[in-house]
Parts: sequence; C-alpha cells; structure tokens
Amino acid sequence: MSVRDPLTIADPEQLTADLVHLSTIVDSTVPGWTRQALTEADVVGRHWVRARMAEAGLDAHIDGAGNVIGVLHGTAPGNSAIMTGSHTDTVEGGGRYDGNVGVAAALEVVRTLHTNNVRLRHDLIVVDFFSEEPNRFGISCIGSRALTGFITPEDLDRVDSDGVRFADELTRIDIDPSALLSSRMDSSRIKAFVELHIEQGPYLEEQGSDIGLVTSITGIKRFRVAFRGRPDHAGTTPMNRRHDAGCAAAGSVLAIEQIASANVDGRGTTGLVTFTPDAVNIVTESAELWGEFRSPDLRWLDDAGTEFHSAVQREGASRSVEAQLDWLPSEQPAGMDDRFIEVTAREADRLGLKQSRLYSGAEHDAAIIAKKIPTAMIFVPSKDGRSHCPDEFTADKDIHSGANVLLNTIITLDRELDFD
Amino acid sequence: MSVRDPLTIADPEQLTADLVHLSTIVDSTVPGWTRQALTEADVVGRHWVRARMAEAGLDAHIDGAGNVIGVLHGTAPGNSAIMTGSHTDTVEGGGRYDGNVGVAAALEVVRTLHTNNVRLRHDLIVVDFFSEEPNRFGISCIGSRALTGFITPEDLDRVDSDGVRFADELTRIDIDPSALLSSRMDSSRIKAFVELHIEQGPYLEEQGSDIGLVTSITGIKRFRVAFRGRPDHAGTTPMNRRHDAGCAAAGSVLAIEQIASANVDGRGTTGLVTFTPDAVNIVTESAELWGEFRSPDLRWLDDAGTEFHSAVQREGASRSVEAQLDWLPSEQPAGMDDRFIEVTAREADRLGLKQSRLYSGAEHDAAIIAKKIPTAMIFVPSKDGRSHCPDEFTADKDIHSGANVLLNTIITLDRELDFD
Repeated sequence: MSVRDPLTIADPEQLTADLVHLSTIVDSTVPGWTRQALTEADVVGRHWVRARMAEAGLDAHIDGAGNVIGVLHGTAPGNSAIMTGSHTDTVEGGGRYDGNVGVAAALEVVRTLHTNNVRLRHDLIVVDFFSEEPNRFGISCIGSRALTGFITPEDLDRVDSDGVRFADELTRIDIDPSALLSSRMDSSRIKAFVELHIEQGPYLEEQGSDIGLVTSITGIKRFRVAFRGRPDHAGTTPMNRRHDAGCAAAGSVLAIEQIASANVDGRGTTGLVTFTPDAVNIVTESAELWGEFRSPDLRWLDDAGTEFHSAVQREGASRSVEAQLDWLPSEQPAGMDDRFIEVTAREADRLGLKQSRLYSGAEHDAAIIAKKIPTAMIFVPSKDGRSHCPDEFTADKDIHSGANVLLNTIITLDRELDFD
Repeated sequence: MSVRDPLTIADPEQLTADLVHLSTIVDSTVPGWTRQALTEADVVGRHWVRARMAEAGLDAHIDGAGNVIGVLHGTAPGNSAIMTGSHTDTVEGGGRYDGNVGVAAALEVVRTLHTNNVRLRHDLIVVDFFSEEPNRFGISCIGSRALTGFITPEDLDRVDSDGVRFADELTRIDIDPSALLSSRMDSSRIKAFVELHIEQGPYLEEQGSDIGLVTSITGIKRFRVAFRGRPDHAGTTPMNRRHDAGCAAAGSVLAIEQIASANVDGRGTTGLVTFTPDAVNIVTESAELWGEFRSPDLRWLDDAGTEFHSAVQREGASRSVEAQLDWLPSEQPAGMDDRFIEVTAREADRLGLKQSRLYSGAEHDAAIIAKKIPTAMIFVPSKDGRSHCPDEFTADKDIHSGANVLLNTIITLDRELDFD
C-alpha cells in the first residue's frame, strides 16, 4: 500500500453553507434552532438532506424507519460497505451544530471524493438517522435502533404523558410502524461506522485540542418515578398527617443530584417533574418525574440505580406515599473499535491536528451501531462546553478539521480494511 | 326581650336536594365535582343560585363582581343589614360540600323564616361570593374582596403562566373589570356577617363535636419562586459545573415542608412546580414553584417567610442559579367577633349540639369580610378531615345542625343587635 498525502475537503464554504441552510429549517414557534423528530420541520429537514445527497451523487432514499440513506457505490465487486453519518433532529430549544455537523460533513466528504476523482472500493453509505434525541415516549436513537434491530413492538406501544401512542405519532408523519420494525439492515456487510459529532462538553477546549478521539460512549439508565399520595386541604391538614407526593418527588430530585455528585464521571439529571393537582391550596396528590443516570462505568451505573431505588422508597415511605420506579430502555456503555481509534489518530496527526482521547458523556447513534458494527467517533470542540441550547457553538475551522479527519479516515479504512 | 324556643329549618330535605342539584352543575371534563370560577359550569351555577334565591322570595341579582346577592327586606325603617352566605365555586377535582353548604343553608334559612312567619328587623343579605378558591392568577376571594374594596387594578392585571391577563378572563365570562372594581358595598350598614362552612379538617370529628365555633381564620402568605440556571447537556456537563434550576426548586420544596413541620399550627405547601425544558437530557434551565405558608400566628408567618427567603437564596446560590422570590397578596390572620362567638355558642347549646372552638386553617370569604364587618363562622364536621377532593363528605344531619345554628344565630342577632 502506497503512502498518500492527506486530502482536505474540497469546499469548506459549501459545508458551512449546508449547516446554515439546515439552521433555517426550524420550528419557529419555539426558541432556539428546534427541529424535533415527529414535527413538520424535521420532515422538511430530512427531505432536504435526501435531495442534497442526490445532488452530491448519492443513490438516496428515505427508508421505512425515516432514516435518510445515500449510497456511493464502490468499485469492487461484492457488497461490503463503510458507513458514516449522524442525525439532523434536535432537542427543543437546541443549537445549530450537534448532529448536523456529522451529516453535512459526510456530504462534503462525498463531494470531495468526486472532485478529487477518488473511487472507494467499498460502498460508502451516508445516513441521517431518524429521531436520535430522546423523545416524549422515553426512547432515543429510533433510526439507528431500527437499522440494527434494537427496536421492538413494545417500544412502539409506549404512550406519552397525554396517553398518545408512539406508533400513532409515527403514522401521523407517514412512517409505517410495521415498516419501521422491518427496516433492519444486513450489518454483516458493513465493515465500519465512523461518526463525526461536536463534543458537547468542555474537555477539548480545556485541553486546547482540535480533535477528540472517542474511546467509549457513556451508558445511560433512564427512569420514571410516580408517587401517589392524598389530595388534602393545604390549610386544614397538619403537616404530620399529609401524604404529600410532591415532597417525595422533590426529595428524589435531590437524591439524583447527590448520588451523581459523589462520582467524578457520574451524571444524574431530572428532566421533568409534574405535580397534580396544580393548586397551592391542595396537598399534591400525585407527582411524576423523569430522569437519568450516565457513566462510562457499568458498575457505577448499577450501584447508582440501586441507591436511587432505596432513596425513592425512603422518600415515599416517610410520607406514606406510594412510590413506583420504572426503568426505561437503557444503554450499556459502548466501547469504540481500538484499531479505528488508531486510524483516526494517525490521520489527525498527518493533518497536523492536536488530539485528545475522551469518553462521550452524550448518547449517540454510534453507541447503538457499535453493538453490531466496529465503530469510531470523532469529536470537535464545543465552545464553553455548551450544547442542546441556542448558545451551542463550534468554530468553522474546527468543523472543517473534523471533516478532514473523517475524509481521510474513510479513505484509509477503505484501503486497509479486508474486503469480502 | 322574651326568651324564645329555638327554631329548626323547615325542610331539611329541600336543603339536601339543593346541594344535590348543585353537584350536577359541574365541568364533566375533569374529575370530581368541579365548578371552577371563570368556567361555564360556574356561570351556570351562579345563575341557578340567583333563580333559587328569587324562588325563596329574595330580591336577587348578580352584581358587577359576579357575586349573587339576594335581599330579604327587613321590617324596620333604615338600611341596616345582616349578611350570610358562602361560595359555590370549587377547586379542580373538588367535592360536593365546601362553600355550597353555606349558600344552600342560607336559602333554607330564608324559606324557614317565611314558613314560620318570622319577620327580621334588619335586611338579610344572602351572598354567593364569586371566585373564592385561589385561581391561576394567584388570587382568591375575588367577590368578597370586591365588596369590601380589597381588590386593585394591579390584581386585575395579573397574568397566568400562559401570559393571559386576569381582566381578559373576566371579560370573557361577561364580568366587566371596571364594574368589578366599583362593586364595593357600604359596609357600615352591615352589622354582622355569619358564614356556615364545612371544617375541611379532622378536628371536630376527633372531638366528637356537632358544631365548630371559629375563633380566628388562618393567615396566609403565598409566593412564587422562579429559578434561572443554564440548559446544559445532561451527559457532558459534570455535576459541579451545572446551574440546575430544577434541583434548586426541589430543595425549596423540601424547605417549605421542613419550615412548616417545625411548628404544630404551621402549614407549608407547594402547589405547582414546572421545569423548563422538559427533556431528560438537558439540565433544567428554569424552574418555577408556587406555594404558601399558613398559620393563625402572624409572628410565625413572618418568621417562616424570612426563613424561606434564606432557603431560596441558599438553594440558588449553591448551584449558581438565580433565585427570585415574589410574595403574592397575603392574608393576615382574621379574628372572629367575640360577642358573635358567644351568640353562636348559646344557640348551639339551646339546640342541644356538642360544640368545639377552633381556628380555621382554611381561607374563607369571612376572613376578608371580617376586616370591615364583625363576623362569625360556624363549622360542621368533615369526614376524615378530607376536603378539596372528591372524598369530601359531611353527613346530612350535620349540615342540618349547622343550618339550625345559622338560623337561630341570625334571628338572635336581629333581635339583639343595635339598630340604626
């Protein structure tokens, strides 16, 4: 194999322009750059990505799970492929970067291969995964789960807090739930998955690094807690005769904070709390909270779950309030492929970029894909570590550096990977 | 003055039937017997009360503040009056008794006076006060405040959490905000106000008493707390770099519980908590809670307020979260008229009813009226102390006993009060 000079992306300004265009396809009724899955903005966004893939010369379609998939056919006979991509859905009130960077960079990688007349042996599959962000049904990474067979009919039967079924919401945006369940791909033909993403944390900036090489992706345990007490009169019911579900929930929120704060890599977050009824002169009858623990350390995650279960029982029992803790679909920590980490490290070096290794505290489609396909992740810095908010920012030069590492990693993998 | 035998209400079954009829005028879209002010059910209910007053021979109308007012004209020349009544609005998910009992009993008192050819010297004014329960604008006792001049243009400019103005909601149900502000009555002509109400607490039942004589009505300090932190990514943001508004709110909810639990007569309740955004993978940016402290002891109330203010500052500061505590319109503890307490005690004795004296932990129109007019309150027992919930229950015999005490108290006050 000949040593080649590293390539750089052909048109950095075009990559930036694609990100700017995506930032105009948003739900204008909510703050930030919001394009949540299951909304009209997301439907429009994914159709735009499909058209942009076709313009870049990809054989593009939207599959039964809502994933936008574009294929650049390889030169070698057979069916082996390399996959790259990310997602373009956002959280409510999100930013302009997040998963958009990995999708827009993959498009520019394809255009650069054309411009430089580089033909890959493998098929190159570019994916914009459907619904990566956690939705109101308590599930995330819908598209990558569907592709790898990690979604079940029970997932589609989940209901949100208004009693709406997930399957019915999918049908509303023309995704057939049964087609989604049968959208699994033949993962044995895909030899590698590489995802470029912003870090969403402060580590690379603190280290003064251009590029992050992800060693593993955090595990996540999500949960819902429901407390049921008694709706007594707030003026006439002595404190020691109350069954206050709201106070039990508040105690649990603090327990989540305390448990996670005791470990340097631990994260614990309450996302939503609701009190019913919502009247200041009635003791809260029922309260619900949704939250999660994260860590790259599976044992800590299990211990945190056990400790939290005890805390929920204690907060309920001390107030004669019924407590119900349900664990939602969880993610194990996902290791990245060691050989691929070395390939990305070498390509970053050849491009003269300063690199750091780190684990990802954020969830990614890469963590789902890694269960079936050897996977690497490339991070670029996030200003002040901010993410999932309108202040999210990554400098153009960092995005371009990330795209360059992605481009050269794909070319090198295409040359070095066994072909069958 | 001659000693007279106590009267009893003429038709106890009619009183019960009126309560049953009111329980059919409810908002069927929410649980319990719900007839909240500002809803169609409440408009229908107050018009039914007006018609029922007219049938009972009262000169009835709905005033500019939405109060239903019926007058039984007295025999003596001049303009002095005795007032009785309560309210027919409910909390969301409320019961069938609460204020309804005092309104229905007042109607039966009027019918009984007619049946027994008892003519009062004073005018007897029967009132169904508008919007006694706290509404979503953070104000209660709208009708009684309007009658006594304790409502301001600022109150009407309050907005709910959706930004809707209170004045606009009033207009929507045909209450003219400027008419409401000018609905003050000439309180100097009203010599007494007597309100019959259910206890809403467990005390009378525990004492085995038929009747409660209210010595004072609790003071209330209501508040809203707003915390503003930062919406960071829940996976990538270390616990010690977070600005979690939700955890600050949870700590404040527990502070409310702890402060109130330290005093036997103290009450502290959180009615509503909201976290924004409501996503499990974003640290809560802003959180809001509404709550209240109650006590018959003004000094404790002030101390509780001071202690809570410190707690809110501490919960915010320890997480670098901005904290804003706003005190809403509050009520001082209201003493009942000592002479009137003795009258009700004597009438209960003459009726052979076992009585207890107690303070009211619940807020009542009587507390507002008492600022201008000497006032008494008569309580009847609540089963298991339950109130503001569908389980609220008071036995017919207890309601009838309460109506009998109300009837004889009014007759005695009419005879014994100076007339001018």
